[in-house]
Amino acid sequence: MPTLASMDSEARRALTEQLAERYETFKAQGLSLDMTRGKPCPAQLDLANPMLTLVDETRTKTAGGVDTRNYGNLGGTDEVLQLFADFLEVGTDEIIVHSNASLTLMHDTVANALLLGVPGGDKPWSQCGPIKFLCPCPGYDRHFSICEHFGIEMIVVDLTGEGPDMDQVESLVANDPSIKGIWCVPKYSNPTGETYSDAVVHRLAAMNCAAPDFRIFWDNAYTVHHLTDTPDELASILQACKDAANPDRVFLFGSTSKVTFAGSGVAMIGGSAANIAAVKKNMSIQAIGPDKINQQRHLLFFQDMHGVRAHMQQHATIIKPKFDAVDEVLERELRAYDVASWSRPTGGYFTSLDTPDGCAAEVCTMADAAGVKMTKAGATFPYGKDPRDRNIRISPSLPSLEEIRQAMELLAICVLRVALARD
Amino acid sequence: MPTLASMDSEARRALTEQLAERYETFKAQGLSLDMTRGKPCPAQLDLANPMLTLVDETRTKTAGGVDTRNYGNLGGTDEVLQLFADFLEVGTDEIIVHSNASLTLMHDTVANALLLGVPGGDKPWSQCGPIKFLCPCPGYDRHFSICEHFGIEMIVVDLTGEGPDMDQVESLVANDPSIKGIWCVPKYSNPTGETYSDAVVHRLAAMNCAAPDFRIFWDNAYTVHHLTDTPDELASILQACKDAANPDRVFLFGSTSKVTFAGSGVAMIGGSAANIAAVKKNMSIQAIGPDKINQQRHLLFFQDMHGVRAHMQQHATIIKPKFDAVDEVLERELRAYDVASWSRPTGGYFTSLDTPDGCAAEVCTMADAAGVKMTKAGATFPYGKDPRDRNIRISPSLPSLEEIRQAMELLAICVLRVALARD
Repeated sequence: MPTLASMDSEARRALTEQLAERYETFKAQGLSLDMTRGKPCPAQLDLANPMLTLVDETRTKTAGGVDTRNYGNLGGTDEVLQLFADFLEVGTDEIIVHSNASLTLMHDTVANALLLGVPGGDKPWSQCGPIKFLCPCPGYDRHFSICEHFGIEMIVVDLTGEGPDMDQVESLVANDPSIKGIWCVPKYSNPTGETYSDAVVHRLAAMNCAAPDFRIFWDNAYTVHHLTDTPDELASILQACKDAANPDRVFLFGSTSKVTFAGSGVAMIGGSAANIAAVKKNMSIQAIGPDKINQQRHLLFFQDMHGVRAHMQQHATIIKPKFDAVDEVLERELRAYDVASWSRPTGGYFTSLDTPDGCAAEVCTMADAAGVKMTKAGATFPYGKDPRDRNIRISPSLPSLEEIRQAMELLAICVLRVALARD
Repeated sequence: MPTLASMDSEARRALTEQLAERYETFKAQGLSLDMTRGKPCPAQLDLANPMLTLVDETRTKTAGGVDTRNYGNLGGTDEVLQLFADFLEVGTDEIIVHSNASLTLMHDTVANALLLGVPGGDKPWSQCGPIKFLCPCPGYDRHFSICEHFGIEMIVVDLTGEGPDMDQVESLVANDPSIKGIWCVPKYSNPTGETYSDAVVHRLAAMNCAAPDFRIFWDNAYTVHHLTDTPDELASILQACKDAANPDRVFLFGSTSKVTFAGSGVAMIGGSAANIAAVKKNMSIQAIGPDKINQQRHLLFFQDMHGVRAHMQQHATIIKPKFDAVDEVLERELRAYDVASWSRPTGGYFTSLDTPDGCAAEVCTMADAAGVKMTKAGATFPYGKDPRDRNIRISPSLPSLEEIRQAMELLAICVLRVALARD
């Protein structure tokens, strides 16, 4: 089969007609498939069902004697701190376990930095004039929404396959004191699936920043979300920051939203003891304590990181075939035409597809019109604007295998149709 | 028995000696009683134990078919909104159920007002120059902490027994556009126990405010926390605001922290549809959804407000005798001396005690030295400073009846000793 570029006009016309016919056949089926968000599927959620009733009236006390049903223990109970310090790979004095969503902790950390500042800064960020964040792209839309919401300017930085382009990053942060932060999903990145190399981690930790209160927002959302038996290894950013004499440079985030129950998990923020003390001081104004009963459920369910890892293997068993199906259909439908590229993630929740430049928005619109909703094109870039209009995020966890195969076939048809029309 | 004021010097000397002896006897017992916080006691928490295991794997879906284990439903599920709209006495489009703590919703509402403003305002509060809140006192220390934390100046307003002194309030807000808010605990107020009269509610709703974006923070924390069979009635502030053509003036707050489990309850914010839309817009940046499983537990446990009310009667059965014990001991030990006054709450969580001016701090220090921790004197005023140094908040819910009797006897001894020494 020839590549699209090498086809003569007759072959292109024939293909165009064939694709139009296949597209109309799909449309006639009246499909309604949703590939928009990285939601766990029911079978994944079922894995945590035993947790629902694990804390009964005989198990409301922690090993340390704390009644999880009452107020207090801001930051988390001792036993829970131990478990999630291991999860986030920090010390027990370098973590707070609170809230049901790491997104909330990230949002609140930015809001507090704006209103009150962070250790190392001499004033609140909102009093520093216009400030900026670096956004390695394609990235997570909800990170960008936080910046847009608070009027923080975003600067796109390229991802390289092993993290952000550090030459770009170093040059930007060294020369512009208004750059206060960078968003990172360092492991199985959303959506590219890449894991930051040791070199990238160490350069982020050691780079010279014009802003003394620069912060890395290290959203380690997929730290235990492996799809293979040979998990990616991510260097410790906190250790690297300490080694580089920049211990306060990073805030780490994690949650069990895609481990136990989405929305009913536990979330955590990590960092240097100084950062954590500052976060806890702010949090003491905002809350009396976390939902300790839910923390206790998690503790009893997992016991320790062995429990977490065993649980995540069950997740992989459920969703790995879905990622394989995405790849299989794209491979079958698109490879030979040499018209698109996509990731083959070894962990995380997404496949990232790049169409030819200028095609992504039209592809998504066309797929939608035939009953397959994709994440809005552009969503993986700040302000929803992909400068090359080519990236599409595929979220295969929620739909069934059959639905994924249908959706990917339609998506591939749309990619080819739009690419053909553009050429 | 003569009043303290009418005693001759010999009687005073005899009493002083007798009290010193009783104090030392207490001290020798090595008590360690904590009357500092309004925490439910274990028997109260036990009442909600059936809720712990109520959502099992067969009950994770709402009546509307939502899987409570997955992402989404920002603002709360339909069924939960209905229950808590009734709880907060607002419409289902006038409420968001989110988070485990109304304190968090209050904090976040202030933080967002500072960063982004509120409907009716022309800019964020943080860009309005120094701003101020009115604080009816004695009041709730955590309200004041939010203001202090964010540098919002606090102005003390007197409580009258039926709410704030409205002449003071009206005069202040009419003339000072930098006054952006007022903290209110309108029912069984913390710590005085008073409930705002209809006249106060209507004057708050209708008063002329120099700030177009003035907000009442209506912390209805004790709306269902009655101690008698004839509950106080509180007029609807939201209806009053609508009637006065100030529909956006009020944010209402509530939670089940002192209904089900403290820290593992559900919290809610209410207000006009416009306010709620603005809050939800901000919340959409901060969260994907609430802990719907915990919301479902609450729904299944209570079903409706009949369930809530029946449950609260059981609470009253447990804690009413504790409030009676406080009153009984203070009555026995202090009444005749005419040296202090205290509230006899018909709901809520506190008894408020006023010593002679200038005595409260020393009384608390003295009680502490003999093993009874009271809420820090001054805590019921902004900046922890009671201008008359007389108010002490008593929290009888957590300790046992026996502990309360001991603690109150010691407290009374300390009040008398300090008063005698001061005269």
